[in-house]
Amino acid sequence: MVRWEPGATDRLRVAALELYVEQGFEQTTVGEIAKSVGLTERTFFRHFADKKEVLFDGQDQLQQAFVDAIAAAPPGPPLSLIATALTEVTGFFPEERRTWSRQRHQVIQANQPLKERELLKLAGLTTAITEALRDRGIKDPAATLAAQTCVTVFSVAFRQWIADGETRSLADVSRDTLAEFKILALETAEP
Amino acid sequence: MVRWEPGATDRLRVAALELYVEQGFEQTTVGEIAKSVGLTERTFFRHFADKKEVLFDGQDQLQQAFVDAIAAAPPGPPLSLIATALTEVTGFFPEERRTWSRQRHQVIQANQPLKERELLKLAGLTTAITEALRDRGIKDPAATLAAQTCVTVFSVAFRQWIADGETRSLADVSRDTLAEFKILALETAEP
Repeated sequence: MVRWEPGATDRLRVAALELYVEQGFEQTTVGEIAKSVGLTERTFFRHFADKKEVLFDGQDQLQQAFVDAIAAAPPGPPLSLIATALTEVTGFFPEERRTWSRQRHQVIQANQPLKERELLKLAGLTTAITEALRDRGIKDPAATLAAQTCVTVFSVAFRQWIADGETRSLADVSRDTLAEFKILALETAEP
Repeated sequence: MVRWEPGATDRLRVAALELYVEQGFEQTTVGEIAKSVGLTERTFFRHFADKKEVLFDGQDQLQQAFVDAIAAAPPGPPLSLIATALTEVTGFFPEERRTWSRQRHQVIQANQPLKERELLKLAGLTTAITEALRDRGIKDPAATLAAQTCVTVFSVAFRQWIADGETRSLADVSRDTLAEFKILALETAEP
């Protein structure tokens, strides 16, 4: 029988990141993470496939949010669908999540296999967004170019949001980054 | 003493890909590759670090070509530096390389670790291009956005170049893809 532990997922997520920051990702065991919040290793594995997944399980929800937002966006050219989606998904990252996201990023950057997992997740996100754009009737190469652009703008904005001293909300950074992107493309509109 | 084998690198590269296509990447051993061109396993490892690297050793030259082209490009906005670089590097992919590139892509797509290696190489390429743009005085986030755009356009164009039935040169596909990209960005210039 699977017992219901209220908030176990969140407690494990917070505890794991704390340990990764304090003593390093490699040095932390699943047993330690579970024990630090009074749970067993077995319970940990009911919530997460492995030690890495604690840092990445939010990505599936994020991907679904992008896909849903593109499906529901008002009609328009590809990049306006992207702009709508970018605004929608920033709701996932309220101010209280910024410190967690910043620490998570530091842990990932310090560990090559985690960096690789992140690259894979971003590649998966790009594929899902490409499909969502095709479902809106956008053909290739526009669908692929727009999806890559979406992930680029999101990644650059997210990096900036978690940078030391940054105070703008992710929605604001995201809008500013998209504006920078348009300037970049416009500056070379004439060959 | 390291002996000089004329063209050994090329012979190993061609032989390896042939075997990967025929019998699968996983099923092919370094010994088989070497033997098929009359060389020893030891000689193989003087040319390539491992079985994967046969498919990726050109990436370092490609990266250097991007970096050099950006350094040497005439002054202009970020995306004009990128456009110059994209044109320069297409010289690496003459018509006679198209079949090899197409088969290489098929082998990579069929194998998860190879797909991951490719993602890592592309991430490294993006970082190198970002640095090259910063050296030209371009600040962030423009440098990162432009570098990501460069790799996006290159990847999309390359995919198209190796698609079945495609007859345009990589230089032409690349120019057309960059034009598509500008249309994409322009269509949403008005918020």
